Amino acid sequence: MNKVLIVSRQHKVYRELLAQAALPDLEVTDDPHHANIILADPPRIADQLDCYPQLQWLQSTFAGVDALTTEQQRRDYQLTNVRGYFGQLISEYVLGFVIDRFRHISHYQQLNQAKQWQPQPYRALSKLTMVILGTGSIGSHLARSCRALGFKVVGVNRHGQMPDPAFHRCYRDQELEQALAQADVVVSTLPATTATDDILNATSLSHCQGALLFNVGRGNAVCEQGLLTAIDSGHIAHAYLDVFKQEPLPAEHPFWENEHITITPHIAAESFPEQVMTIFSHNYRRFHQQQPLDYVVDFEQGY
Amino acid sequence: MNKVLIVSRQHKVYRELLAQAALPDLEVTDDPHHANIILADPPRIADQLDCYPQLQWLQSTFAGVDALTTEQQRRDYQLTNVRGYFGQLISEYVLGFVIDRFRHISHYQQLNQAKQWQPQPYRALSKLTMVILGTGSIGSHLARSCRALGFKVVGVNRHGQMPDPAFHRCYRDQELEQALAQADVVVSTLPATTATDDILNATSLSHCQGALLFNVGRGNAVCEQGLLTAIDSGHIAHAYLDVFKQEPLPAEHPFWENEHITITPHIAAESFPEQVMTIFSHNYRRFHQQQPLDYVVDFEQGY
Repeated sequence: MNKVLIVSRQHKVYRELLAQAALPDLEVTDDPHHANIILADPPRIADQLDCYPQLQWLQSTFAGVDALTTEQQRRDYQLTNVRGYFGQLISEYVLGFVIDRFRHISHYQQLNQAKQWQPQPYRALSKLTMVILGTGSIGSHLARSCRALGFKVVGVNRHGQMPDPAFHRCYRDQELEQALAQADVVVSTLPATTATDDILNATSLSHCQGALLFNVGRGNAVCEQGLLTAIDSGHIAHAYLDVFKQEPLPAEHPFWENEHITITPHIAAESFPEQVMTIFSHNYRRFHQQQPLDYVVDFEQGY
Repeated sequence: MNKVLIVSRQHKVYRELLAQAALPDLEVTDDPHHANIILADPPRIADQLDCYPQLQWLQSTFAGVDALTTEQQRRDYQLTNVRGYFGQLISEYVLGFVIDRFRHISHYQQLNQAKQWQPQPYRALSKLTMVILGTGSIGSHLARSCRALGFKVVGVNRHGQMPDPAFHRCYRDQELEQALAQADVVVSTLPATTATDDILNATSLSHCQGALLFNVGRGNAVCEQGLLTAIDSGHIAHAYLDVFKQEPLPAEHPFWENEHITITPHIAAESFPEQVMTIFSHNYRRFHQQQPLDYVVDFEQGY
C-alpha cells in the first residue's frame, strides 16, 4: 500500500479529489513517518523535507520548484512538477495586457462611464516582435498563441535550438542582448536557477528600445534596480510583473509608485487542483506500475 | 489615361500614397465628370453616386459597403471592398475584451493604483465556446485566432459549410438558435443586408445562457430593444458593441446607462490607408490590364 500526504493551501480540495480518483493501492495519510508520496505546494514543504523518512516521490502542485532545489536540500527522492497547463494561462495573461495597451481596452471602458464617443488611434499587433526567454512548455505554448495572433516570435534558451516551429528563431543565452534589441515585447518564463539570477538587469535591458517587459517566470530573473534604470532611460516602456523576489510585494516597494509598472499578485498561471490531480493520477499509475515518472525535475538544472 | 477621384476623410493621406505608388496611366482628378475610378469611404459618396458619368470602378476604403448597395442606387459599375486586413484587428478587439473580463486585466490595474495585492479567482478561456455569425474573411480569421487560444469555435452562415478547418462546426442560418444555445461568447461579423436585419433579437437571444455578445459587424444585426430584454433576463451577461444603427450613438441612448453594455466608437477594425492602398494598387494593376478585379461586391447579396 502507498501512502500519500498532502501539504497544500488547498488541502481539503485535494483530499476530495484524491477520494474521487480512487487510485489503486493508495491511501491518504497525515503521518509524516508513513508517507512515501507527497503532493505539495513547494514553499509549504520546503523546510520540512527531512521529516519524511519514507519519501520516494514528491509531486509539486506548482510549475516552479525552486523552493525544493537548493543545494542544501535532500535529493534522495523523485521530484515531479506540473507542466502543460500553464502555457494557456500565461498566454491569456500576456495577450490580455498587450492588447489592453495597444487597443485601449481599459481606456474605452473609462470613456464609457463618461459617455464619451472618442476613437483612439492605434496600430495592429501583427508584425510586433515578441522575445520569449525560456522555451519550455510555457514558452512554446506562448509562442504558438502569439504567432497565431500575428506576432513574430523569437526565443532565447541555453542551446539556441528551436523546440517548436512557432518560433521564427531561437538565440542562445549568450546572444540575449541581440535578441532583446529586436523586441517590442519581452517575456521571461525562466525558472529560478543560479543561471537566471538577475539575467534582466540594467546592462541587458539597455539593449531594448522601448519594449514592454513581462515577468511571468520567477522574480529572481529581474534585477529590480536595473529595471527601474531601464524604465527611467526609456529602454523599457512598461513592465508587467507577476512574480517578485519577495511576495507579496512589500507595501513600501518602489514598484508600487512607478506608473510604468503594473503589478499582479502572482496570478498569471494558477494551479487549478483538477489539473494537478490529472497529472498526479497519471504519474501515480506509472509509479504504481514501476514505470518512469513524467515531468521529473533535474535537481542540478533546477527545472 | 485613367482618372481617380478620392472621397475620404483621409483625402490628403490617400493623395500622398497615390503619388508614391506611381501607378501606370493613372492620375488623380477632382472633377467628377472625368473620374472613371473612385476611391471612397462609402458613407461619404453614397448620395453623390449619380454625379460621376464615367464611373467604371469604385474601390471602397471600408469592408462594409451597405451605404452603396441599397436597391435605389446605381449598379452599373464594379464595386470592390477591402478584405483580409480586418480579421486581425477584429480578433484583437474580441480577445482583448474577453481576456479582460475573464482575467481581470482592468481590475488589476485599478488594484495597482490602490497598492492592493489581491488575487482574484478566475477560470481559463480554453474550452469556452465561441459562436461566430458570418464566416467570411473576418469570421474565419477570428476563428483561427480564437481556436489557437483554446476556444471551441462554431460558425453560423447561409449554407452550413465550413470555410476553414478552425471551425469545429458550422450551422445554417435557420439553426441559429441551436448554435446560440451553446455559446459562451457570440460574435456577429455579419454585413448589413435585409437578411441580417435584427437577426439578434429578444427571441433568438433568449436561447443564450449568460453569454457575452460582441457586435463587430453592422449595427443592423442587433435589435436594440431585444438586446436590452436579453440583458435584463440574464440571457446576455454583457454586450460589447462597436457598431450601431445610428453612429455616433446618441447621448440619450439607453445603452450608455446600461452597466452590462460596453460601447466602443466603431474602432474594432479601422481602415489603415496603407493597407487600403495595397489593395487599390493590386486591383488597379488588374483593372489596367483588363483582368477581373478582386474583392468584388455582389450588389444583390450586399457583400
